[in-house]
Amino acid sequence: MGRVSPLAVSLGDPAGIGPEIVAKAWERREAARLPPFFAVGATRSIEAVWQGPIVRIFDPAEAERHFDKALPIIEVVDAAAIIPGEPNMPGARCSLDSLELAAGLARSGTAGALVTGPVSKAQLYAIGFNHAGQTEFIAERCGVSRENVAMMLAGPTLRTVPVTTHVALRDVPDLLTVDLILAKIRTTDRGLRRNFGIAAPRLAVAGLNPHAGEQGALGREEIEIVVPAIELAREEGMDVRGPLAADTMFHPRARAAYDAAICLYHDQALIPLKTLHFDEGVNMTLGLPIVRTAPDHGTAFEIAGKDRAEPGAMIAAIAVAGECAMFRALEG
Amino acid sequence: MGRVSPLAVSLGDPAGIGPEIVAKAWERREAARLPPFFAVGATRSIEAVWQGPIVRIFDPAEAERHFDKALPIIEVVDAAAIIPGEPNMPGARCSLDSLELAAGLARSGTAGALVTGPVSKAQLYAIGFNHAGQTEFIAERCGVSRENVAMMLAGPTLRTVPVTTHVALRDVPDLLTVDLILAKIRTTDRGLRRNFGIAAPRLAVAGLNPHAGEQGALGREEIEIVVPAIELAREEGMDVRGPLAADTMFHPRARAAYDAAICLYHDQALIPLKTLHFDEGVNMTLGLPIVRTAPDHGTAFEIAGKDRAEPGAMIAAIAVAGECAMFRALEG
Repeated sequence: MGRVSPLAVSLGDPAGIGPEIVAKAWERREAARLPPFFAVGATRSIEAVWQGPIVRIFDPAEAERHFDKALPIIEVVDAAAIIPGEPNMPGARCSLDSLELAAGLARSGTAGALVTGPVSKAQLYAIGFNHAGQTEFIAERCGVSRENVAMMLAGPTLRTVPVTTHVALRDVPDLLTVDLILAKIRTTDRGLRRNFGIAAPRLAVAGLNPHAGEQGALGREEIEIVVPAIELAREEGMDVRGPLAADTMFHPRARAAYDAAICLYHDQALIPLKTLHFDEGVNMTLGLPIVRTAPDHGTAFEIAGKDRAEPGAMIAAIAVAGECAMFRALEG
Repeated sequence: MGRVSPLAVSLGDPAGIGPEIVAKAWERREAARLPPFFAVGATRSIEAVWQGPIVRIFDPAEAERHFDKALPIIEVVDAAAIIPGEPNMPGARCSLDSLELAAGLARSGTAGALVTGPVSKAQLYAIGFNHAGQTEFIAERCGVSRENVAMMLAGPTLRTVPVTTHVALRDVPDLLTVDLILAKIRTTDRGLRRNFGIAAPRLAVAGLNPHAGEQGALGREEIEIVVPAIELAREEGMDVRGPLAADTMFHPRARAAYDAAICLYHDQALIPLKTLHFDEGVNMTLGLPIVRTAPDHGTAFEIAGKDRAEPGAMIAAIAVAGECAMFRALEG
């Protein structure tokens, strides 16, 4: 059986809720049966919001022996004052340094997986960050093109993969192509095998239009784009059904018939996931050489430092990352 | 306290599951505490799939004294053979006659509400029916313009109203106007007051784009269309919030903050509703002088006559119609 190295958890923006939810996740490590992990970020950002024990480490391997008694951290210096809820540019730089270091440790195999805390895109853009988000940054650092990674939202009873993500709904129909849908199907199929140990993943693809277009009466994208992509995927041996009417594919009996739903736009994937699993949604990047997860929420500056942040999604992100790292270790 | 007349339940297509689920709803009348109702349709369509007692009546008022012991029916003759699962044109005519008679009884006040069983649009179009669906037909018979009715999907913990319905997703952005959204907000506000006895309805309006457009970065429909409609509704005294990010407005805590969600397209309204309440979704028409509900599913010809149809949605449709009729009667 493969052994999993401690997981690297970047704290995200030091003024956001990242430090608090990572510390709270550590507090609940036993109840949630979390694998050993260590924080990557500014120690002061945790101290500003949490009174528990922290131990500074210099190598991920040290995390294991300290994990029972203290939250291990690999320090990334933030040169400015850290005030929860008040982001600043040094904090943004710190969040980027933390991400880069944590990603590098995962990439090298020193860390078993990468879990990323929430960053502020607006703050990152202000310091010259030129990626759409953390996912694109990580993909580049891993040498994987954007087309071959996919975002998967995972909850206890549903996994969804949006084919298009942060674009206006108006632009979605023209962004959909056979190649794009096929690429996401492939990445999802492989991702479920590698990360979840599913030997023969069952995929369901949603239609774009009401009732999946009703044979073309309510839109032709199903006929012209979605069906051809599904047929090509089947020719490659994948188990893919669809296009399904999006409104009737997420109730309990329907969900039991597939391992992941390929959705065509952001809200089609996110509405069912967050309706069912709002506090435990994990954002996972498929198609990378490493395991990468993140809690599916933002920095929540407005509640940072008030002891009101719920660590549920961070706990789920760490737990899922640990399980996926274990599956990968078993395989290889 | 107002008294509610028996409810008229049209059987829908005689070859669909309508007759079976109406009969099964009658069987469960006590457990589900259903108000007295009567079927409108072909007696033979029930006899073909159900062995229970049926009593033919000639006036809705008779339904009450028979309801305990038999399913009351007002007969609509079907001149052809009725074979479950095999629709034909005489059956389509029968379903239309049943709808017209049941709607007329509700319109006159002889019946307390109208519940419609599932029809086949394809079959109806084949006999010259020139309305988009039953709802449009009923609206016309009630003398209400299409713009002033709204479809509401209601489940135990969520009510949604789609502003646009059966149109291609590609066409949605250009169909949305301030006037259309405002009309649906008004109809929903009034409908909740009249039918559900909610004195001050709280409405939530979804955004069109991911994250409700992120201040225009992911689409401008929120700024140009949705916000102005909400502001006009507020000026009229309605309690309306939004535009909300559609993915984070349907989890339990979010739902607790409003009485109905105004959604901008079919799947935005139907995905959360059917994800949560697949077997008990009620389709209700707001803006009519009568109470009208329907189970939120189709004729299901493929399982008709096999004793496999679940009556849950029909039971919910009858129960909700009864409650709404009671609220209206209480008001006067």
